[in-house]
Amino acid sequence: MELAILGGTGDIGEGLAMRFASDTDHTITVGSRDAAKASERARAYEKRLSAHDVETEISGTDNSSAAASADVVILAIPPHHVGDTVEELTEDNVLSDQLLISPAVGMSGDGDGLHYRPPSTGSVTEFVAQRAPESVPVAGAFHNLAADRLADLEATLDVDTLVVADDPAVSDRVVTLTADLAGVRPIPAGPLSNAAEVESLTPLLINIARYNEGMHDVGVTFN
Amino acid sequence: MELAILGGTGDIGEGLAMRFASDTDHTITVGSRDAAKASERARAYEKRLSAHDVETEISGTDNSSAAASADVVILAIPPHHVGDTVEELTEDNVLSDQLLISPAVGMSGDGDGLHYRPPSTGSVTEFVAQRAPESVPVAGAFHNLAADRLADLEATLDVDTLVVADDPAVSDRVVTLTADLAGVRPIPAGPLSNAAEVESLTPLLINIARYNEGMHDVGVTFN
Repeated sequence: MELAILGGTGDIGEGLAMRFASDTDHTITVGSRDAAKASERARAYEKRLSAHDVETEISGTDNSSAAASADVVILAIPPHHVGDTVEELTEDNVLSDQLLISPAVGMSGDGDGLHYRPPSTGSVTEFVAQRAPESVPVAGAFHNLAADRLADLEATLDVDTLVVADDPAVSDRVVTLTADLAGVRPIPAGPLSNAAEVESLTPLLINIARYNEGMHDVGVTFN
Repeated sequence: MELAILGGTGDIGEGLAMRFASDTDHTITVGSRDAAKASERARAYEKRLSAHDVETEISGTDNSSAAASADVVILAIPPHHVGDTVEELTEDNVLSDQLLISPAVGMSGDGDGLHYRPPSTGSVTEFVAQRAPESVPVAGAFHNLAADRLADLEATLDVDTLVVADDPAVSDRVVTLTADLAGVRPIPAGPLSNAAEVESLTPLLINIARYNEGMHDVGVTFN
């Protein structure tokens, strides 16, 4: 399968690229607004994977080109840019039936911690769904995975991630995709209208990391 | 120590009463708007504890009387009543330096699941702190523990609960209190202004339970 990770030069994009490259046979393309930067980062990821005895090819190109040839597109884009990115993909006419997965979370910080700040549509995931063409299935996932922990292939994960999608078949596709990542258990949490409760877990995890020694890059499991 | 559980005839009140009675030596008083009902429920809890070889005395009385003699007061009251209850305690002049712990969460449901609906102050925990006299320390805890799982003494917990308080010493007191419950690990999550991210975990857990077989009364752990 062809997997495009847009914003794949950023932290969560890097983490997801490293794990999908390491744990699956999918063809990975890193997308960025800057194609040259994407290409350069793709080579850096290959090198780091090779150091872990994972010999694989990762491509890097601009976001639209990466999405055009993909089956699944992960929008590893900051929340305040993800709407524009989806609109660009639509304008560039590259979206047909790719599955879009949104991991972004709107947050703001104060002296005490991070707080959940969703867009007026209710959640970033729903915001992406509103901006995408109707034919394009949208899911939310990977919101609550710590980027640095993903990117560190020596790190044990043993964490859960929540999946939201309006169509249960779309949710199933994301669950299947995610279950291939070693140590990541995907858990369905219902339709997109439940995304806010999923996304708000991210600032909580960051606050827990801040107030507890030894819980840096903390993840979550449900039991 | 004297522990009052106001609203102790309700689901989460019952669960906390059963576990604190079973796992600690604290003196437990169940409070309710209806003193007779509190007393009747207290006897029922004693009977159920006795069936689990826990011989202990639990008192039941009205909320103000329960709070008056307590060191720690757990406000196991529905979110839309908890403000009035704290005001009644204040008017009845029973609050001096008791530690108030708020486990309530504002939620509303639609066809898809439950959604976090905090009061305009940001969270129920902060709402309680606003209504309480300034001298009274307020913390949030126990939001994300499933009531029925607590109440079932046969059930294994192995779950975490998050603690918020503005004063780290108050947070420490709640952590110490909670650590006595078998299978419950208290985790500080910062000041009261971080309570919204803690409280919003509750509708998420209920949504996860709904969309996943075998995850009824699901809890959370951070790792």
